[in-house]
Amino acid sequence: MADSHQNDFSLIAAIDLGSNSFHMVLARVDQGEIRILERLGEKVQLAAGLDENRMLSEEAMQRGLDCLRRFAQLINGLPSGAVRIVGTNALREARNRGQFIRQVQQILGHRAEVVSGREEARLIYLGVSHTLADDSGRRLVADIGGGSTEFIVGERFESLLRESLNVGCVSFSRHFFADGKITAARYSQAYTAARLELMNIEKAIHRLGWTEAVGASGTIRTIGQCIQAAGKGQGEVTREGLQWLKRKVLKATHVEKLDIQGLKADRQPILPAGLAILEAMFDALGIESMAHSEGALREGVLYDLLGRQQHEDVRERTLSALMERYHVDMEQAARVEAKAQRLMHKVDEQWHLSVSKQADLLIWAARVHEVGLDIAHHQFHKHGAYLIEHSDLPGFSRQDQQALALLVRGHRRNLPNAERLSEFGDDAGTLLRLCMILRLAILYHHIRGNQDMPELAVEAGQDYLILHFPEGWLEANPLTQADFDQEALYWAKASYRLTVR
Amino acid sequence: MADSHQNDFSLIAAIDLGSNSFHMVLARVDQGEIRILERLGEKVQLAAGLDENRMLSEEAMQRGLDCLRRFAQLINGLPSGAVRIVGTNALREARNRGQFIRQVQQILGHRAEVVSGREEARLIYLGVSHTLADDSGRRLVADIGGGSTEFIVGERFESLLRESLNVGCVSFSRHFFADGKITAARYSQAYTAARLELMNIEKAIHRLGWTEAVGASGTIRTIGQCIQAAGKGQGEVTREGLQWLKRKVLKATHVEKLDIQGLKADRQPILPAGLAILEAMFDALGIESMAHSEGALREGVLYDLLGRQQHEDVRERTLSALMERYHVDMEQAARVEAKAQRLMHKVDEQWHLSVSKQADLLIWAARVHEVGLDIAHHQFHKHGAYLIEHSDLPGFSRQDQQALALLVRGHRRNLPNAERLSEFGDDAGTLLRLCMILRLAILYHHIRGNQDMPELAVEAGQDYLILHFPEGWLEANPLTQADFDQEALYWAKASYRLTVR
Repeated sequence: MADSHQNDFSLIAAIDLGSNSFHMVLARVDQGEIRILERLGEKVQLAAGLDENRMLSEEAMQRGLDCLRRFAQLINGLPSGAVRIVGTNALREARNRGQFIRQVQQILGHRAEVVSGREEARLIYLGVSHTLADDSGRRLVADIGGGSTEFIVGERFESLLRESLNVGCVSFSRHFFADGKITAARYSQAYTAARLELMNIEKAIHRLGWTEAVGASGTIRTIGQCIQAAGKGQGEVTREGLQWLKRKVLKATHVEKLDIQGLKADRQPILPAGLAILEAMFDALGIESMAHSEGALREGVLYDLLGRQQHEDVRERTLSALMERYHVDMEQAARVEAKAQRLMHKVDEQWHLSVSKQADLLIWAARVHEVGLDIAHHQFHKHGAYLIEHSDLPGFSRQDQQALALLVRGHRRNLPNAERLSEFGDDAGTLLRLCMILRLAILYHHIRGNQDMPELAVEAGQDYLILHFPEGWLEANPLTQADFDQEALYWAKASYRLTVR
Repeated sequence: MADSHQNDFSLIAAIDLGSNSFHMVLARVDQGEIRILERLGEKVQLAAGLDENRMLSEEAMQRGLDCLRRFAQLINGLPSGAVRIVGTNALREARNRGQFIRQVQQILGHRAEVVSGREEARLIYLGVSHTLADDSGRRLVADIGGGSTEFIVGERFESLLRESLNVGCVSFSRHFFADGKITAARYSQAYTAARLELMNIEKAIHRLGWTEAVGASGTIRTIGQCIQAAGKGQGEVTREGLQWLKRKVLKATHVEKLDIQGLKADRQPILPAGLAILEAMFDALGIESMAHSEGALREGVLYDLLGRQQHEDVRERTLSALMERYHVDMEQAARVEAKAQRLMHKVDEQWHLSVSKQADLLIWAARVHEVGLDIAHHQFHKHGAYLIEHSDLPGFSRQDQQALALLVRGHRRNLPNAERLSEFGDDAGTLLRLCMILRLAILYHHIRGNQDMPELAVEAGQDYLILHFPEGWLEANPLTQADFDQEALYWAKASYRLTVR
């Protein structure tokens, strides 16, 4: 990887831009162990600000940004790489998320990412599993969020199945209990809607099997607390407790009349929907009892950060699995990767690529640029980009996947055009140059195998790059000459000059 | 498969709408063997009528249609399924191919398909391998066409590698020898362009290895004949022969002055380009000598037709491989397939699906509708459609793949919309109904596993369908009720009424 991380990572932080609440945890890393120093949480209800056109309202964004201004001072001065900020369902949905994300970055001074539902599930499991006894039983973990619910089956620290459904306590409250009235018919509609979604995954979960069910998230904790306050159990959710609570909730007829011990006021409006979802989950998955874990997404993000720093980067494993699955020519990938890295350093004085936050992308792209060949040879760069953009790639944010897809798609034929690049904002220029370096490394090894290629001298400028071959070499190798001549035409379209001497 | 093929297939025909020439073969099937009765070929030069916007000129289309009118009388009265018409590179390229294809179908009374480069390669190998001794050596087969060149490495009747490059004797002639002048520089440009394209595949061919090289197509035959006429060899192309012919061609300085024994007048204009391509191939792949086979695409199409009728349909194998590769839940696929077939027959009186030419699509779609799950759960219907549209699927035409992708994409969430359907012309209505039947079969088995589901009575009309469940069953199974209610909303958007009783 790019060797630019020579910072102090004794303090690390994770921020979870959830659909219902925003959370932050700050921790000290002590001999490879995490000690939580501070936990902050605020109920922002971002999901409640999404309109039917999937636009986040100004007010909802302001609530979120105000909360983050309060968080900001705690992470002041932490180096890049020590803070990870992840957005979940409400931001996956919001079409104007770009605007929000940019403001988040301004306030916090760190990159904010939106993660896919499955990546969220992986991180949740990582957080939960670190709070549980390290035994070898198989676990079912569920996390009812504001906009989505995640399901994981795992063993120890490893998730075997990760799923995310568009079922959430905030979105369901808006849909089924908008005015606060509670009726049996509405409850039943919410329950049925959750069951229909669960149908998509229940068979797969049954097939894997599990011995222990654990819930994360405020909804499950709250329901457990209500049941406990009534003298039933120790805080776990049971079938019997659910039925008892459901009767109480239906009797209340309105969320404002919910008078239940253990229920905080800010939880009242979303209890009926949360309860319906949890009951649907118990029935669909055959759960009898569900304990609660305090570990959650934010803790998972911390453990993931720690892993990256201790060279157990899950992204490395993900890419290796991808290469294997799509039968990538490993030797060629390794040659291109090595060459890309050397070329990057040769132009560093002018282009500053190796110190950019995107430098890792070049290495990753070199490894996976040929995955699309496994689908078809014709336009394989496009197939590869499709796979990378849409696959479930543990450890990568959606932005990472999009940028990686851009490089893979641009590794042959046309370079990424201005319109496509513009989606990447300030990173556009760097991405284009990384793509150019990748292409040169591939061209350099166009004739696969171990043909002897000479070492190159490279000269870079604002809008040009000059490759110096040894005297007479190009004349003796006209195919390489023709190959680079063709490449220069592609560069010209992107207003760069490539000269080969 | 749909059991509608109860026709007489003692006569079968294949028509090849090539970029340079159109060919037809008519054959008798005699105890499972093919006996050629008639061969027709005309130089149509379709590729020469493609302009820079990839539009086929009216004149080029007329040349093609005139030729087909002459072919038509020979296949007059042959049943559907006994004739296969395939278009290759010029039609893959032409943006207005739809217009041409429709006129072809009017003239010939049979469906015309455009096949991908790799499918073309598979069919060529099938044709060539039936002309060769049935020994076990590994063969390299190459076919230089007007717009593309196909490469296959295979053993006996099985191709192991299939590739197609955008390198053709007509397109290269237009590009490098447009005015007929021949110079060493132009020849060298054409040679280099071919070498650059060959770089994409030469390593893979080397890796597989081969012991015998065989050429198909007029270009290779002609070059062999010129060499033979000069007293060198028995019609095979050799390195020495190529060098001799190249000197003669360069010396002529213009295609009209090519005075070479064995060269027909209509081959003169495309000889320099064909020769440059063949020389590039010899150098890139290390060929010393290449024999010629009379078998080609059209013969391959005949053998493929014969296979389909004798239940060795390569498409079946292709789909099985696809299901295995993307880890499809085979039991669920089989349940959905069986149910889809039963439902299709239940609505047959009104909807006439099982006798349509598209009936097979329903069965195929039932098998592969879940392939996209292997990429990601989120929007897996779209991923599945992408894989089916873009993968190399031996035995399927591009139209088949597009129609199959339509059904897979439409198997959940929204039905295919009018715009998408309109691309399928007269087949649109049938495809929409096939998609509806597929969805019902999937809904019926939404709860995977062997839940007891009752037998349904089905009533179909012009724009509606009514499912009759046994008395009281739906009330006892509210989830299924809710599932079908949701489905009815999707149908309403497509102006169909779905009623469940």
